[in-house]
Amino acid sequence: MTYNSGELLYEGKAKRIFKTDHVDEVLVEFKNDTTAFNAVKRVQLDEKGLMNCQISACLFEVLGDQGVPNHYLGLASDVSMVAQRVKVIPLEVVIRNIAAGSFCKQMPIALGTELPSPLLDLYYKDDSLADPLLSEARLEILDLVTFEQRSQLSKIALQVNSILSSFFSQLDLTLVDFKLEFGINSSGKILLADEISPDTCRLWDQRIEDPQDRILDKDRFRQNLGGVVDAYREVLKRVHSVCAKPRFYK
Amino acid sequence: MTYNSGELLYEGKAKRIFKTDHVDEVLVEFKNDTTAFNAVKRVQLDEKGLMNCQISACLFEVLGDQGVPNHYLGLASDVSMVAQRVKVIPLEVVIRNIAAGSFCKQMPIALGTELPSPLLDLYYKDDSLADPLLSEARLEILDLVTFEQRSQLSKIALQVNSILSSFFSQLDLTLVDFKLEFGINSSGKILLADEISPDTCRLWDQRIEDPQDRILDKDRFRQNLGGVVDAYREVLKRVHSVCAKPRFYK
Repeated sequence: MTYNSGELLYEGKAKRIFKTDHVDEVLVEFKNDTTAFNAVKRVQLDEKGLMNCQISACLFEVLGDQGVPNHYLGLASDVSMVAQRVKVIPLEVVIRNIAAGSFCKQMPIALGTELPSPLLDLYYKDDSLADPLLSEARLEILDLVTFEQRSQLSKIALQVNSILSSFFSQLDLTLVDFKLEFGINSSGKILLADEISPDTCRLWDQRIEDPQDRILDKDRFRQNLGGVVDAYREVLKRVHSVCAKPRFYK
Repeated sequence: MTYNSGELLYEGKAKRIFKTDHVDEVLVEFKNDTTAFNAVKRVQLDEKGLMNCQISACLFEVLGDQGVPNHYLGLASDVSMVAQRVKVIPLEVVIRNIAAGSFCKQMPIALGTELPSPLLDLYYKDDSLADPLLSEARLEILDLVTFEQRSQLSKIALQVNSILSSFFSQLDLTLVDFKLEFGINSSGKILLADEISPDTCRLWDQRIEDPQDRILDKDRFRQNLGGVVDAYREVLKRVHSVCAKPRFYK
């Protein structure tokens, strides 16, 4: 584990980021900590980190194969991956295909309603402000990205939606919505970063009709439905059924 | 009071709307009810309705004189005015010149910071959803206005800001931010509607330095600063110093 020896650069709610021997690479370690509602609700769930690391690795490989620029370089262990070091853009880029979650508390649109086209919501990533929704005008005031970068984020996010919606669909999973984060690498290139997992995607099992039983994502935790890790394991099982096990780095 | 005899069409938090003998006209009666935080906080303040009615009447006349299409036709009493009947567009159109209020809880920008240019925030007017902020994309999903109407709303709101900022400035008042509502009359024309008063504008007294003492608007109520009606009376006094008393209708 050469990669685990570096200095801790950053500890988030679900991951730790370590330095490595390479200045442009970091080790991303997935934790079992599971939080919701801006970390007001928090528990440890055995193997959650492993599931999210493995699912993310597979999805980054699928996206990379289709030309989506992302930070992933390869697994370092069952619960960690090597990634390009990026300066994170403090935006949560959310794509919604079906109304769910906070969207239904803010819009007169019922849970489960298919949206006329994928909706892109931008949130300012700041726990102290509870990650507020941004209008285009508010985004401009924050001056976090250039107009060019803003366009690129949207374009990549919609491309990811198109690729992952198809990918999950063949696994009988509906991609309801998901959150992406982006960073800028040392060459100034925008890369998809962070993770893509049942912590950051809503996934509904098409093989199940019951609106609670079909949930295979962090909503099981948010809504106290139980079986959180079992749901994540089911997602990983299906992902592995069509995806080779992800590569180890070097 | 011919105009007060009609059927109650609608009762809001601060106003009642009555039918009149003319199908295209309504009577708008200003109440003393004062509410904040989505009506969680509510009191009666003597003369508040009168102040808001008189201030609104003057401001609608100032705006009308400068070509801003609005619903106001003339006073019917000290606490009521006749207005064109409109179908209200369920949007709160907020213009912010200086950071204050909810904006400072949602953006990393301190109270009192001058914004680089006037910011237009759109909120969906729905108490049950607590009037959520809308992005352009969410507005489109709601399908409340056409693209044309959306452009018109912005244009009128920015024009109102320009006129009222100058107007208040000559009275040594700073127009920090304000909320407008719009409606569509029987000819399909978009009109500025609702009221323009210290209930819907933040106004700071330029003659006073203390950041609490200078507040002459509903923030005195929201923040329990006292002297709410005195503040509104001061605003009315200054408005009357440059504005003829508003016309009575017919």
